[in-house]
Amino acid sequence: MNESERLAELGREFHKRGWVLGTSGNFSAVVSRDPLRLAITASSLDKGQLLPEHILEIDGAGHVVGQTQGKPSAETLLHIAIVNSLQAGAVLHTHSVWSTILSDYHMGSGGFFIEGYEMLKGLEGVRTHEHREWIPILENSQNMESLAAETRSALQENPGIHGFLIRRHGMYTWGKDLTEAARHVEILEFLLESVGRRQMMEPQH
Amino acid sequence: MNESERLAELGREFHKRGWVLGTSGNFSAVVSRDPLRLAITASSLDKGQLLPEHILEIDGAGHVVGQTQGKPSAETLLHIAIVNSLQAGAVLHTHSVWSTILSDYHMGSGGFFIEGYEMLKGLEGVRTHEHREWIPILENSQNMESLAAETRSALQENPGIHGFLIRRHGMYTWGKDLTEAARHVEILEFLLESVGRRQMMEPQH
Amino acid sequence: MNESERLAELGREFHKRGWVLGTSGNFSAVVSRDPLRLAITASSLDKGQLLPEHILEIDGAGHVVGQTQGKPSAETLLHIAIVNSLQAGAVLHTHSVWSTILSDYHMGSGGFFIEGYEMLKGLEGVRTHEHREWIPILENSQNMESLAAETRSALQENPGIHGFLIRRHGMYTWGKDLTEAARHVEILEFLLESVGRRQMMEPQH
Amino acid sequence: MNESERLAELGREFHKRGWVLGTSGNFSAVVSRDPLRLAITASSLDKGQLLPEHILEIDGAGHVVGQTQGKPSAETLLHIAIVNSLQAGAVLHTHSVWSTILSDYHMGSGGFFIEGYEMLKGLEGVRTHEHREWIPILENSQNMESLAAETRSALQENPGIHGFLIRRHGMYTWGKDLTEAARHVEILEFLLESVGRRQMMEPQH
Repeated sequence: MNESERLAELGREFHKRGWVLGTSGNFSAVVSRDPLRLAITASSLDKGQLLPEHILEIDGAGHVVGQTQGKPSAETLLHIAIVNSLQAGAVLHTHSVWSTILSDYHMGSGGFFIEGYEMLKGLEGVRTHEHREWIPILENSQNMESLAAETRSALQENPGIHGFLIRRHGMYTWGKDLTEAARHVEILEFLLESVGRRQMMEPQH
Repeated sequence: MNESERLAELGREFHKRGWVLGTSGNFSAVVSRDPLRLAITASSLDKGQLLPEHILEIDGAGHVVGQTQGKPSAETLLHIAIVNSLQAGAVLHTHSVWSTILSDYHMGSGGFFIEGYEMLKGLEGVRTHEHREWIPILENSQNMESLAAETRSALQENPGIHGFLIRRHGMYTWGKDLTEAARHVEILEFLLESVGRRQMMEPQH
Repeated sequence: MNESERLAELGREFHKRGWVLGTSGNFSAVVSRDPLRLAITASSLDKGQLLPEHILEIDGAGHVVGQTQGKPSAETLLHIAIVNSLQAGAVLHTHSVWSTILSDYHMGSGGFFIEGYEMLKGLEGVRTHEHREWIPILENSQNMESLAAETRSALQENPGIHGFLIRRHGMYTWGKDLTEAARHVEILEFLLESVGRRQMMEPQH
Repeated sequence: MNESERLAELGREFHKRGWVLGTSGNFSAVVSRDPLRLAITASSLDKGQLLPEHILEIDGAGHVVGQTQGKPSAETLLHIAIVNSLQAGAVLHTHSVWSTILSDYHMGSGGFFIEGYEMLKGLEGVRTHEHREWIPILENSQNMESLAAETRSALQENPGIHGFLIRRHGMYTWGKDLTEAARHVEILEFLLESVGRRQMMEPQH
């Protein structure tokens, strides 16, 4: 299976799991590093119907290259920012209910910690549940240049993080390849649901 | 696939997703505009078993025409009111848990705003998360003439809305065609679940 | 499809929907009225694996008759009590999370009302959302004779109800046939989840 | 189907139900008792993709034996401790949202009781809902020798229990064979969700 087929399959699976409803979500994978070539979802597609022909190839400036045609995802610049900052091989943006509401709830603190959970060990490089994972939250914006700049800053100021949220706009995570990035989605979605529900239990104490 | 096949398929899919349990929900699509002909679900059917032969054709007064036979959905007049008021090409009424409880919770204010969510951009014509979407709530009634009149008023008083709730009775949304209307269901259901769960988190502050 | 096949299929479907996990739940359908013969699930089966050969035939005293062999469901006497009291053609006992917790929460009042919900119209004979449906709750017991007697009393004292709960033990509903009884499960499960979640929203007021 | 096939199938099913996301969860079944041989999942696998070749055979010291190769689950010593302490034939470790948050919520009391639920009768040897099931919670650790020792103590101090939680790390349960152990997972997950949601309803009183 090539990158386009894997991205399309991932899209359909994530849609079924409620993580990329409507036309939300976008996915990319590095095809070559030098010069940078990314396989990325086209803009405004129903992810439940995603097919390999909906995956475009872009260069490091976000322009469509090669034999593919169409308009790449509006959030292309964020994918490129993450790939360049972290040498990531794949970037996945999902948009679940739990990431949406936690990104709003914790906006005032600019993020929140997830710590003490065994499931954190599913994140690359984490060896113990005693890990403290900071989840930064960026303010949402329709200005992609400025949101990409915010992304670069957040990645620089928070070395070692595995994902971040955009306010009321879901989650970004990544990995050295698509398999690792997809595992990070599953791990982080589990953790977000867990801390979200845990918090709703608090008042009974 | 013709309208009947698509409406039947949509019904079975929405049933699986918990949006039209029992015999709840009804769906229509414009077949011709002048004279108005609507393909619409027959009354009192299990949507999980919906087949093309369960779709009737009606005229602008709600009478069955053409080769189909049966009793059209009890809420036929609402579909016609929406099609006529907005030139919509398809109308979908779903009945999820979240639309049901929010329609009750916010009844006192006659509706509520959803704003600041990126997912709002999945609604036709919305270009930014800074959009403020008003979700009007109508009091429920078994008198379909009066409920259709309420619907026409609500649509006139709230230009640009993408859907409304009926108290403890679910949601109506629409689109220029079935694809757009189905996307609106998915988007609005996501948003209703998000604002519902977000609200349940509030007391921890 | 005969009764055994339909009951087995229903069991597997309800298991998938989380309504009869483990060996919980039991189902019956009237095969003949005079003398009374019921097709009923055997005791202690995994409903996710239910097959037609797991369905027994019993008489009005709960004894296995005909060519089937095995031990009928422990709750056989409740099924017979409901069939005899209401002339029901099918009885379904499910055991969902929402029926379990609401049966505990409202035990002190002996039951609770569900009213004002459009979905109530999915219950046989209900024509308007203005219907007030009383959901009695019986104290749980391992003494099936006494629980059957409690059931008969509850049905007599509450004419017109469509189901009842047993404390921390799930729901019983019925219908003139399996199709109607299965619809009642779907309707009541929706309503229980709706009133349960609605209640959890209350403190924000 | 042999043990490896059944363990692999169970893994894929549990993944679909959200009980072993990412690489969480591990499963074992006794192949022979004297000398002890366990079929057990290899370390760090995506349970949604589990295949028979991912199942290793180990001896009573946790070393891989026979024709299989690989690194057994990091929690192998816990499986051996449970098999030896209770003569269990199968051990299943799942990692659901509800077990994770309840293991945190009740850590201060070292565990919690589940009582009065009919569903408890799905646990081996329980004959009445009046049963009181203690769910011990162990503090999480990456030191498997010490966690295995804690497990042996907990099993000795709490005879008759059917499972335990590890803080923010999910649940362990077991059975005389895989069928019974898998039923215990389903029963305990239901009960954990029920007591968790029940608790979130409390403040309305």
